[in-house]
Amino acid sequence: MKAANMAVQVGLVMALALAGSSAYAAEPKPLPPKPSVGDIVKESKAADWRALDLDNTLYMDLPGGRVVIELAPTFAPNHARNIKALAREGYFDGLAIIRSQDNFVVQWGDPDEKNPKPIKNAKAKLPAEFTVPLKNDTAFTRLKDVDGYAPQVGHSNGFPVGRDPKKGETWLAHCYGMVGVGRDSESDSGGGTALYVVSGQSPRHLDRNITVVGRVISGMPLLSTVPRGPAPMGFFDKPEMQIPIKAFRVAADVPEGERSKFEIMRTESATYQKVVEAQRNRGGPWTKVAAGHIDLCNAPIPVREAK
Amino acid sequence: MKAANMAVQVGLVMALALAGSSAYAAEPKPLPPKPSVGDIVKESKAADWRALDLDNTLYMDLPGGRVVIELAPTFAPNHARNIKALAREGYFDGLAIIRSQDNFVVQWGDPDEKNPKPIKNAKAKLPAEFTVPLKNDTAFTRLKDVDGYAPQVGHSNGFPVGRDPKKGETWLAHCYGMVGVGRDSESDSGGGTALYVVSGQSPRHLDRNITVVGRVISGMPLLSTVPRGPAPMGFFDKPEMQIPIKAFRVAADVPEGERSKFEIMRTESATYQKVVEAQRNRGGPWTKVAAGHIDLCNAPIPVREAK
Repeated sequence: MKAANMAVQVGLVMALALAGSSAYAAEPKPLPPKPSVGDIVKESKAADWRALDLDNTLYMDLPGGRVVIELAPTFAPNHARNIKALAREGYFDGLAIIRSQDNFVVQWGDPDEKNPKPIKNAKAKLPAEFTVPLKNDTAFTRLKDVDGYAPQVGHSNGFPVGRDPKKGETWLAHCYGMVGVGRDSESDSGGGTALYVVSGQSPRHLDRNITVVGRVISGMPLLSTVPRGPAPMGFFDKPEMQIPIKAFRVAADVPEGERSKFEIMRTESATYQKVVEAQRNRGGPWTKVAAGHIDLCNAPIPVREAK
Repeated sequence: MKAANMAVQVGLVMALALAGSSAYAAEPKPLPPKPSVGDIVKESKAADWRALDLDNTLYMDLPGGRVVIELAPTFAPNHARNIKALAREGYFDGLAIIRSQDNFVVQWGDPDEKNPKPIKNAKAKLPAEFTVPLKNDTAFTRLKDVDGYAPQVGHSNGFPVGRDPKKGETWLAHCYGMVGVGRDSESDSGGGTALYVVSGQSPRHLDRNITVVGRVISGMPLLSTVPRGPAPMGFFDKPEMQIPIKAFRVAADVPEGERSKFEIMRTESATYQKVVEAQRNRGGPWTKVAAGHIDLCNAPIPVREAK
C-alpha cells in the first residue's frame, strides 16, 4: 500500500467517454483549490510518521497475500497479549476464514465446532475489555465534529476512538478495517480465538459491546472481497468456501527479510490535523460543496511503506 | 435476498469453540430483551411493503448473477430518464465493470476511452441534479438522530436522504449500495454513461456533489466483492480484470418470467419506525450497551422477495 494509494476518496474524477458535447451553464461559485489528502501526505515530514511496533503487529498470511494487523494494547491489553500467545503457539495456523457477511464483517477462526483445535497455553476466554479508563490513553486528539455514538471522538496513536468523559471511559470505534473479538452472549465469552474485521459501513452500535483489538493496516482487500457466505450471518456452509490461514505470526517473530515494513501517520501531529481538514472541507475544482464535517470513520489514517 | 437475511447486523453471536471454561463476573445490568430488526420484519403486514415500479427498476446481468437497481426519479428525474434511454438503446450491454476501489466504489461503463461506444438517442451529458427542491419530495420521514453532513436526514420512499430546509433542498445520501453518476470536474459533465455504487464506508462528503440516481436492492455482493483494481482510484489496468455486463435492461422491458420480484418496506410506515428503533436501541441479551443513536447509513431498509 503506497502513500499515493492512501489518497482515498479524493474524488471520482475520471475521463468520461463523451460522445457529443453541449454547453451548460457555468459552474456556480467554484470552491478555491486546496491541498488534498494526497498532497498533504506527499508533503509530510519524517517526524509525522511512526514505525509499527513489531511486538504488536500481526501478519496473517493467506493464499492471496498478507494481511497486516496493528494491535492496540492501550485499549485491550489482555486480549492483545492473549492473541499474541495464540499466534505464538500456532493456534491460527491452518484455521480459516469462515464468514463473510456483506456490508458488515469477515471473520476467521476454527471452522470445526465439533472437534475444536485445542489451545495450549493461551486463554480461551477473558474478561471483556469493551472500554478502558480514560487515563490509559494519553495520545487522544479530538475531532471537533459531532458524533451520534459517543460524546467525544477522535484518534489515539493511529486508531479511531470514542470516549465518554463523564463515565471516564474510552474505546476503539468500529470503523472499516477495525479488528474485534467475536463472542457469544456473555460479555466474557470471547478471548481472541474468533476474530473479525469490519468490511462495510461502520457498525458503531457494536462499540462498547465487543472488545476491539486493532486495525488492518495493509491487505484489507484480501478480506473485503471474500465471497459472501450463504448461511445466516454470512457463515460458510461448505468447507470449500473457507480460505485457509497459512500462517498467523507476531511480526517480531518473523525473520527480518520476511517482514512487511509500514509507517503510520502520527494522529497527534499537526500534519494529521491537516489531513482531516482536507477531507472535512475539500477544495475545488471537482468538489462543489464542501461537507464542513467529517465522520470519525471517514477520516483516513495514512499508512505508507517504510523505506 | 430473503427477509431473514435482511436482519443485518444483529450481532456476532456464534458458537465459539471453547476449550476449557472459567467463571467470570456476572453480566452488569443486562438490557431487557427487545424485538430485533428481524423480528419486526417477520411480524410486518402486507401493507408495510410496496412492490418495485418496473419502469424505474434496472437489471444489470453479470456473469455471476443479477444486480437489481431501483431508480429514484423524484431525486434525479432527468438522469433516471436518460439512464433508461441508455439501457433501452443497449448502451450498457457488452460494456463492463471497470473500477473497484476498496472501501469506496465499484464503477461500470465503457472501458474503451479511445474508441468509445457511440450513443444513439440518449444524452451523453445532462445538467447536474445534485439536489432537488424540497417540495418535490412528499414522502420524507425524518430520523431524529443527529447528523454532521445535513441539517436533516431520513428516508423517502425507501431511499436515504438529506435535506436543508433553509436552502429548500433535498438529496439522496451516499450510503452503502447507492448508485451515482460519475462525472469529470464540471458539474454537468455526467449523464449516466458511467455509473458507480458505494461499496464501503458511506462517503457522505460526496452528497450534493454528484447526481445520485438510485439504490442496489439486490445483488450487492456481486459488486462489493469485485477484486480491487491496481491502478489509481481502483481502475483496472488490464482488460482481463473487466467484468462484462451481459445485459442492462429496464425491468418493464423484460419478459415477466425473467423478472426479479422484490418488495421494499415502506419507510413512511409505522413498522419502519420500529425497524429503526430496534437498530437504534437494541435489547439484550447479546447487546450490553444500546447505542441510543442510529446513523442514516446504518438504518437498514428491508427488502424481501415478493411471493
